[in-house]
Amino acid sequence: MYRIGIDLGGTNMKAGIVDENHKIVIQDSIPTRVEHPYKEIIRDMAELVKDLLKKIHITEEKLSGIGVGSPGTVDAKNGIVLYSNNFNWENIPLAEELGKYFACKIRISNDANCAALGEVMAGAAMKIKNAVLITLGTGVGGGVIIDGQVFEGAHAGGAELGHTSLIFGGERCTCGRRGCAEAYVSATALIREAKLAAKNNPDSIMNELCKGDLSNMNGKVPFDAAEQNDAVGIKVVNDYIIYLGETITNYVNIFRPDIVLLSGGVCNQKEKLTEPLTEYIKTQCFGREKAYVPEVRCAILGNNAGIIGAASLIALVS
Amino acid sequence: MYRIGIDLGGTNMKAGIVDENHKIVIQDSIPTRVEHPYKEIIRDMAELVKDLLKKIHITEEKLSGIGVGSPGTVDAKNGIVLYSNNFNWENIPLAEELGKYFACKIRISNDANCAALGEVMAGAAMKIKNAVLITLGTGVGGGVIIDGQVFEGAHAGGAELGHTSLIFGGERCTCGRRGCAEAYVSATALIREAKLAAKNNPDSIMNELCKGDLSNMNGKVPFDAAEQNDAVGIKVVNDYIIYLGETITNYVNIFRPDIVLLSGGVCNQKEKLTEPLTEYIKTQCFGREKAYVPEVRCAILGNNAGIIGAASLIALVS
Repeated sequence: MYRIGIDLGGTNMKAGIVDENHKIVIQDSIPTRVEHPYKEIIRDMAELVKDLLKKIHITEEKLSGIGVGSPGTVDAKNGIVLYSNNFNWENIPLAEELGKYFACKIRISNDANCAALGEVMAGAAMKIKNAVLITLGTGVGGGVIIDGQVFEGAHAGGAELGHTSLIFGGERCTCGRRGCAEAYVSATALIREAKLAAKNNPDSIMNELCKGDLSNMNGKVPFDAAEQNDAVGIKVVNDYIIYLGETITNYVNIFRPDIVLLSGGVCNQKEKLTEPLTEYIKTQCFGREKAYVPEVRCAILGNNAGIIGAASLIALVS
Repeated sequence: MYRIGIDLGGTNMKAGIVDENHKIVIQDSIPTRVEHPYKEIIRDMAELVKDLLKKIHITEEKLSGIGVGSPGTVDAKNGIVLYSNNFNWENIPLAEELGKYFACKIRISNDANCAALGEVMAGAAMKIKNAVLITLGTGVGGGVIIDGQVFEGAHAGGAELGHTSLIFGGERCTCGRRGCAEAYVSATALIREAKLAAKNNPDSIMNELCKGDLSNMNGKVPFDAAEQNDAVGIKVVNDYIIYLGETITNYVNIFRPDIVLLSGGVCNQKEKLTEPLTEYIKTQCFGREKAYVPEVRCAILGNNAGIIGAASLIALVS
């Protein structure tokens, strides 16, 4: 039997046919066109899946189900996207609408949850039962796996790991609160801080790396500058690691998982990121080394995590 | 059948015989004498239980088990207290040692977990399956109930809800970190802030309420002063509610429970505390009122929560 995993993004939607070994047999993506009515977006999603099935001559009877990872606040139990900022969606019956095109079962969950589940099923946390994944992108998402199952909270709007306080009264977060972790550890925040530091320090090599135009700033630049011993770059990187270290320490004290996973472009920094973070939480988490200190590891499936994880929503509930 | 619940505190240890309806049939307490070797403390615990049994003529055969709520970092699976600051304990085999005196099964858990379980079994969250309890005492503990079960983290040292960041780089916390929630929302922290405000504002009515001696300060004084329209008292109370509101919002965004419970002396303020807090989280939690906003309620079992919850460790696993 096969399962379908769909990763619904604000720019593109990706779908893949996943086999029983969590391998993606075939995948494709198309633009999401968030400005379209939700029924059209979901029709596009159905067509994307049907095209994939046709391409490798698999009939619907061979499908045990379809899983969808959606951004926003998801009521997984009822298959409804309660709220998505990017899509301007409210109370969208995603599972029901997609179900008009397929006879098999359909499950949905938050996209970060799916990414975490993907890494646990087939990625950096394979065979690990308890993991916390923090996605460091435009925003910050969280996926929590407890005893091999996605933990979404008792009601929709849980496991929002980016939206817990880090700096009281600090930067305004996209959620409306001030000082959330997302406002300091997202890629957006790292770029904001690097730009500001480069602007305030014209001698910083970061300006050169951006070819004199700070709109070229990205999350790699401060790390590259730090590598070249640029004091300003070093400070941006160190601050970022402290913010992220504090955030991870919070989640160690709450979930005390086997492992903490990070995903997003900044993970290209690999051990330059994970080593100081593991050291940080060793000295900061409750009970220090008298308690269990989880390793911090980078996710490895990249964009495929969402597809594999969404498909796994089916495996786990069937 | 009966179960025993023991609430091991730094000053006193309390034990009770609990019936199948979660009622305490009889209870007693004796000084803990933390300075004694652990084997003596546990022997005292055993004698306290045996005395209770004798008093109401119940034989050990009528016991389905003994549950103990212990402070510190507890390895519930193995029955070991990994670390307790107050007791100066490290790797104490509490369950095994207590098991030398009894034939029935013995379970241990963290004291805040037991308090949460007690309130869910027989108190303010009865028949509720998902609850977060925050204990506001000398320190701040956390008890998390997911689907009717205590969630302690995958490894010992989880659910430490007092030890997550609130004010970056702020007050030093008892755990060694800076700016933890505990350092701002514990009774200790409230008293610290009230003392400081009263000292800096000699005209504040708080000085009068303390009879001119700030060592008389307690958590009730700022609330009483606020009731009398004392601007300084109002500020202390408002700040406290914001700190606590931020802390609760974090746990709503993570666990999205049915309900949030508070316990500790400050709960005597009842709706003066819970009403502004419920309003606060409505405006601050992720998704606002588009998501589920749990009610904030005060615990009602007081000291009995620990006994009933500890006894319930047995009911849940048998």
